Amino acid sequence: MKIVTCVAPVNIAVIKYWGKRDDKLILPLNDSVSTTLSTEHLCAKTTIMISSEFQSDRLWLNGREENCENPRIQNCLREVYALSRIYEIDGDISAIARQGSGSACRSVLGGFVQWNKGDQDDGSDSLATQLAPANHWPEMRILILVVHEKHKKISSKIGMEQSVKTSELLKYRVSHCVPQRIQDIKQAILNKDFERFAEITMKDSNQFHAVCLDTFPPAVYMNDVSHAIVNFVHCYNKLKGHNALAYTFDAGPNACLYMKEHDVPKVLGLLSVIFPFPGEEDSYIKGISINKDTIPQETQAAFGMEQQIEGSLKYIIHTRLGNGPKKLESQNEHLLTESGVPKNLVV
Amino acid sequence: MKIVTCVAPVNIAVIKYWGKRDDKLILPLNDSVSTTLSTEHLCAKTTIMISSEFQSDRLWLNGREENCENPRIQNCLREVYALSRIYEIDGDISAIARQGSGSACRSVLGGFVQWNKGDQDDGSDSLATQLAPANHWPEMRILILVVHEKHKKISSKIGMEQSVKTSELLKYRVSHCVPQRIQDIKQAILNKDFERFAEITMKDSNQFHAVCLDTFPPAVYMNDVSHAIVNFVHCYNKLKGHNALAYTFDAGPNACLYMKEHDVPKVLGLLSVIFPFPGEEDSYIKGISINKDTIPQETQAAFGMEQQIEGSLKYIIHTRLGNGPKKLESQNEHLLTESGVPKNLVV
Repeated sequence: MKIVTCVAPVNIAVIKYWGKRDDKLILPLNDSVSTTLSTEHLCAKTTIMISSEFQSDRLWLNGREENCENPRIQNCLREVYALSRIYEIDGDISAIARQGSGSACRSVLGGFVQWNKGDQDDGSDSLATQLAPANHWPEMRILILVVHEKHKKISSKIGMEQSVKTSELLKYRVSHCVPQRIQDIKQAILNKDFERFAEITMKDSNQFHAVCLDTFPPAVYMNDVSHAIVNFVHCYNKLKGHNALAYTFDAGPNACLYMKEHDVPKVLGLLSVIFPFPGEEDSYIKGISINKDTIPQETQAAFGMEQQIEGSLKYIIHTRLGNGPKKLESQNEHLLTESGVPKNLVV
Repeated sequence: MKIVTCVAPVNIAVIKYWGKRDDKLILPLNDSVSTTLSTEHLCAKTTIMISSEFQSDRLWLNGREENCENPRIQNCLREVYALSRIYEIDGDISAIARQGSGSACRSVLGGFVQWNKGDQDDGSDSLATQLAPANHWPEMRILILVVHEKHKKISSKIGMEQSVKTSELLKYRVSHCVPQRIQDIKQAILNKDFERFAEITMKDSNQFHAVCLDTFPPAVYMNDVSHAIVNFVHCYNKLKGHNALAYTFDAGPNACLYMKEHDVPKVLGLLSVIFPFPGEEDSYIKGISINKDTIPQETQAAFGMEQQIEGSLKYIIHTRLGNGPKKLESQNEHLLTESGVPKNLVV
């Protein structure tokens, strides 16, 4: 019997992946770049157990048992067993992760990560590489702004398939816009040029959502609150006189804001004013603990944006970059009992 | 003393104008195509009076006096006086209208109109031409869905200037997408192919808003209600099994829906269900009077869209295509008194 428990991080793309060149192998049309978040505040925890006494493969996701016949799960399991054969030798984990969800391949490394689209038909060169570790830019901070989702959204899998089929602008984005942006943002990261990093990040988020809107029927992921957050960031940067804050949105209404550590108290102070929270402040801001600034009346007036409806934001997570997946050594971290079933089952 | 009163129609672009190649002469980067609406339900009414007794030029807009030194007003007046010199001979009215607002040049003709971008530096070939008169497609009906505007919007003048400066996707739209669409929609109009007309119209509206989103900072004109209307149209077309309804959005949240006459009762019936109106039905639907369908429960259930918050739509205008501007002969239509001041002054 052997049991292993790992935590894997969330990654947030600053140059977006949208569109596959191969649907089966999950190979992207363009390179993408992301930051890997710390596993302190957001992570996926997995326990794997092997035993000669088990009758069959079983898998629980969020406490619910899943069907192991699912093709995506099959693809992952096949790769994992192949890896287990070369037991304790590092295999190509990013290629395995890609089988589950394309962008997940970027989560196998910490800091700043590039997923190279690759040129080979078999996908052998479509891998994630680290551009810089998390400690390269230790001042970088992240706020995740969680927004109420009002209507059911189009899955990113379906959305990007539709974009590839119908968006004329996607072709141009992939061939002309992204290659230049990848070069530019790599330079910005290596030079720790926040201004440039912020501008490219915001422009690429906007262009990704533009392509979604150019899809037929359109795939709309941002809502009025998301757009109010965009407005907030531009107002903040105007107030500061430079790009001190950047937004990026994935296939949903939640925002991810990038800033340097010294801007966090002011940004949180202004967010609390513009997006008032109806309940206790403690449950509004999670993650790294920090005292937010009190915003004087004259700054509020000069900010150039009206207060939004109470409760527009559900909560905020304050976090930083991290070092990628890690194995947890303590026995009580395992999600499975000694007999191989989840400790917390959802019935 | 001479007095003339005219009404000029609204036009709604189906291939959008967005971006100038010359800011002073108001010359567009691409051709556009529009429909001219009937002046029965929406129009701009103007009275012009000349008299040897008047001391100076005076101008009232919506009952308020404007400064005649304004450069746009100056440009229009200069052109109008030039025209008056060749009194009662038809001048090039579309070139004059363009001086006031680019897209206004399409309103000088009825039915289906193309504004040719032109190639000359002086703009002499940037003129509107009629593709087909209104009676070419008499079944065509239009619903204007007026949406509550929550926040102040970026003017289309500023928005398009920003797009020309910052949107990479605009370049591709202008050079690759629009020329093909112009050809395709002209064919669809001449063949009265509603399916094709609807698809191109919706795709071009989406692409225009995609370009606005690709602008930096982004220009966001559609809101959650606008996107709910888009969803409504796609649900309706799914229900009918073909593109029986089309949407288009200008630089604002209001929708313009195109359909054939026989679809109007069902569309209005479903709109009343999905976008419930809090007040009297009479004030909800203006314009051409029609009995809307009563929608059975099973159709509502099959429609695939949740009911929106009461009052999401302010009101609906039901109208048709029209023949362009017209001179009103009756004395009591004049907006000015015999002494040359407005009958209704806003103080």
